[in-house]
Parts: sequence; structure tokens; C-alpha cells
Amino acid sequence: MKLLIVGSVAIDSIETPWGGAPRVLGGSATYAALAARLWVPTAMVAVVGSDFPEAYRRQLARSGLNGSGLVRLPGRTFRWKGRYDVNLQPKTLLLDLGVFTSFDPQLSPSLRRVQAAFLGNIHPSLQWRVLKQLDSPRLTACDSRDDWILNNRREFLALLKQMDLSFLNDHEARLLTGVHGLVKATRALARMGPKVAIVKKGEHGVLAASHDAFFSLPGYPLAHVVDPTGAGDAFAGTCMGILARQPRLNWGSLCRAVERACVVAAVTIEAFGPAKLCRLTRADVSRRTRAFQAMSRPLAL
Amino acid sequence: MKLLIVGSVAIDSIETPWGGAPRVLGGSATYAALAARLWVPTAMVAVVGSDFPEAYRRQLARSGLNGSGLVRLPGRTFRWKGRYDVNLQPKTLLLDLGVFTSFDPQLSPSLRRVQAAFLGNIHPSLQWRVLKQLDSPRLTACDSRDDWILNNRREFLALLKQMDLSFLNDHEARLLTGVHGLVKATRALARMGPKVAIVKKGEHGVLAASHDAFFSLPGYPLAHVVDPTGAGDAFAGTCMGILARQPRLNWGSLCRAVERACVVAAVTIEAFGPAKLCRLTRADVSRRTRAFQAMSRPLAL
Repeated sequence: MKLLIVGSVAIDSIETPWGGAPRVLGGSATYAALAARLWVPTAMVAVVGSDFPEAYRRQLARSGLNGSGLVRLPGRTFRWKGRYDVNLQPKTLLLDLGVFTSFDPQLSPSLRRVQAAFLGNIHPSLQWRVLKQLDSPRLTACDSRDDWILNNRREFLALLKQMDLSFLNDHEARLLTGVHGLVKATRALARMGPKVAIVKKGEHGVLAASHDAFFSLPGYPLAHVVDPTGAGDAFAGTCMGILARQPRLNWGSLCRAVERACVVAAVTIEAFGPAKLCRLTRADVSRRTRAFQAMSRPLAL
Repeated sequence: MKLLIVGSVAIDSIETPWGGAPRVLGGSATYAALAARLWVPTAMVAVVGSDFPEAYRRQLARSGLNGSGLVRLPGRTFRWKGRYDVNLQPKTLLLDLGVFTSFDPQLSPSLRRVQAAFLGNIHPSLQWRVLKQLDSPRLTACDSRDDWILNNRREFLALLKQMDLSFLNDHEARLLTGVHGLVKATRALARMGPKVAIVKKGEHGVLAASHDAFFSLPGYPLAHVVDPTGAGDAFAGTCMGILARQPRLNWGSLCRAVERACVVAAVTIEAFGPAKLCRLTRADVSRRTRAFQAMSRPLAL
């Protein structure tokens, strides 16, 4: 197994100004792993409840993910109900952690030996617990959310210092650094631990900073967004899947991975839940990456 | 004379969360012309009052602009006092149109024969009056603002149909098209008249659409913004200056012009007023465009 992804597997109910979908498969680990699997053998570490639909279990299994780390506990699966406004900002209407409150990830010997790990958006203490079980990963990355950043700041800052990459959105980057300007905040983040700080700006694209380099791409131009859920996780999963194949992290590979990640994030949000992400192939990504390049690079004279 | 730029010449008093500058040289024609002059002989058509500082007149003359269309009328120069918030959104504290209320632009025979014209942000009836005096310009473009779009909609829509390019910001594009999503709004704008619709998104860069092509660039990554005033005008002026040199408008040249325009807009906002724009050279723009490319294009494998 090359890549391990820990995070949530959830049942999401989603409303947008243009429609809605009740009880679709969701969660940070789901989106990240479904994206990463296009590039490397990927294992999910997560928990579901006794109510987790058999159809969703089969959907994950069919997609070629290693599900040996997917635990089933008595109780309810993590549920999120949210509503997006016209600016695609989510509002949480209902949050039920369910079996997640008693989740204690235990990695099998083979999972401990993974070469890369993405610690998705879960409580920093769970991210730490997974990290400590890994033998010697070559590439590590984490995500987080405003709640953990505000209420578990010290624990998350310590985790950041262990990471090769961090994936936060603009709001989270501002909260963590106390810097409002996003270019400055991204650079500040890169001085707080990770080798590369990546700040996701939704439709406006992405910023990335290392201690001595900076990179920026616009969002993939999309006329119709159906459901923004999972875009950030699919983005991170794509970067991790591509970079887990490289012998070591270098800036050029990172920038190319970020470009493909913008494409996969855009495809993800063209349908409710992970429906389009499940059907995506590497050939699709290549084709749309060429289209993205044509729309974001002036040709040389 | 290759390029004519009509718009305001103003005296601006600016406040930002980080500082302020009273009574600096400003106005849409000022910023656009100071940017365009780096590429083509440029003439300004505008009006100032009897209070217009001699130092500012000399500053414009020294910069190599043709000022034969700069009229001086008895009365006060257009004044704007504004305050930017942390998101760099401006709030107008004082607006005094001054001599602008009685401005009736009359072009000399030589100005009527210009090859390109930029109708900057002034009342649509004034933009029309200038357009009608032009013999047969090869390239035309306009800007506007929310007030004119709301209150002079029909007049502005008719003007748009005559234009090769439109330069609006995200807010104005939404107002004009009634479409919230910016990719869709930019495409909708391109169906409303101009050959190419350009939508400026401030720090998040720019979108451009023709009837069959789309282009997007992120903003030039800038850690310290001093004064956002004039960024959009300097952006439009740069595009017009570069494109006025081309025998005809084509998509490749447009995308390359937009890239340089992002650079010039970024330089402009690194100082209060047009101070940095006045000192800018084409060599500076080339150097920073290479830096921009390194930060926004993954190298090929």
C-alpha cells in the first residue's frame, strides 16, 4: 500500500440554491481516497456505523480502495446536513458525529508501513494517533477545520511541524496565522512547520508557498457548480496520489500535481456527492488538464 | 497618435487599514494612460478644474502623454475620498464631480483619427459622445461602474455592442448580466456585444471570454498592497497599449496582454496614487512577467 488516508466517511444531506440531495455518500476520507486511487494503491482508515448503507460500502469497494482500515462500529454513521449560499459558502444545519466520538484508529502492520499519509479533516488528536503508528512515511500531509484550529490550536500546530504539506482553505489559513492577506498568510503558514503550505480558495484557485518559492493557479473555469462538497478533499487526495509516486517531494512536481488537483476538484463539484469522482479516469484528468492549460497559459509568441 | 483614453482626472484622498494619502493624483484616465504610454503614443481626453495642481500637470506632461485633449475649466477638479476595508473593498466618503458635470469632450482632427480608444469609467453619454467623433478606430474598449450600469443601462448596453473589449469588475459584471457565477457572467457578457469580455477580480485575478474561448489568470501574488486605487484602470490601459500595436485583435495576443496587465496592476497598488506606475518601464514589466509566469505555470516534465 502506497498511500493511507484517514478522515471521515459520512452520510451528507446537501442543499444548494439550485437543488439538493439527501443522504449521499460523503466525508473527507471518501473524497480524498476516491481521488488519490487514480494514481496509487490507496487505503482508507475511517469508521462507519451499523446504519451505513450496504450500497455505499460496495461503491467504495468497487472503486478499488483498500478498505481493511474501514471499521464498522455499533451506532450511527457520521452525518452532516448543510446548505450552500450563492457564494458556495456552506452553513451546517445538522452535525451528528455518531460513531466518530469513539473512533480509535488501529493500523494493521501493513498499513503502518505506508509510504505516504494524508491526515484528513478529523480531530487533531486522532490525526496524531495515526501519525504515531506510522513506521517512516516519506510524505505526510494534513487538513483541518476552523473548530480544531480554534479549540485545539497547540495540538494542531505541533502536528503541522511534522508535515510535508498542509492543505487549508483561505478562512482556515487566516484563522491559524492571524494574517488577513492570503499571499502573506500562505507564506506565514509555510514558516509554521510544513515544507509546503497550500491554501485553497474555492472558485478562485489556490496558493502554495515553501520557504523560498510561491505558486498560484486560478480555479478551473466552471460554468455550473452542482455541489461544492468534497472539492477540497478531492484536491488534497489528487496531490497526495500524484506525489506519493515520486521518490521525493520537489517544487516542480508539486506545481504539476496542484494543476491536476484543480481539475479533479472541478470535476467533483459537477454532481451531488462523489458521483462524478467515482467515474473519473486518469485519461479524463489528462484531457481536462490540457483544456485547463489552454485556458490559463498564454501561448508563447 | 495611436491610442486615445477618455476618463476622469481626479484628486483622490485615500484611506486604507494601513495608512492614507490626501490629495494624490488620480482618475481613470490618469491610471489607464500612464500604463498604456509604455507601449504606444497615448493621448488623454479629460477635464480638470482651475484648482488642478501645477505639479500634477507637469507630472502628466513629463510622462510623455499627449495632453492636447486635457481641458482646463473654471471650477473644481473631480475629487474622490475613499476608504478601503481589509478586503480592499472601497467605500466612497466624498464624491465631488466638479467641472466634470459640464464636460463636453471635443476631439481635434488628429485625435479623431486614432487607431484605438479606451472609454474609461465616465458617464455613458460622454463615452458615446467621444465614440461618435472617432473616424474609424480599429480597436475600442470601455469600462463602467455600478451607478451607470443601474441608472443608464440602455445607453451602456448600446455602447457595449460597439466595443471590441469590455473591462468590468466582478460586481459590475454580476449587475449587468444578472448572473451570479462569474464564469457564466463573463460568458454572458461576451454575448451582450463586445468581442471579448474581461472581468477583473482584484487579488483573485481575471476572467476573459469570447464567443468561443475562455481564459483565466490568478492575480500577481503580492504580499503588501498599499493602495488598490487605479488597479483596474492600469490593467485596462496596459491591455489597450499592447493591443493597439497589433494589426488586429487575436486571442493569443489578448491572453499575453492580460498577463502583462496583471503585472502592471500589481505594481500600481504597491504605492499610494500613481507613484510606482509613473516610474515603471517596459523592462520592469518584462522582468516581473517572467516572475509571474514562474509563479503561475508548472514547468513541463
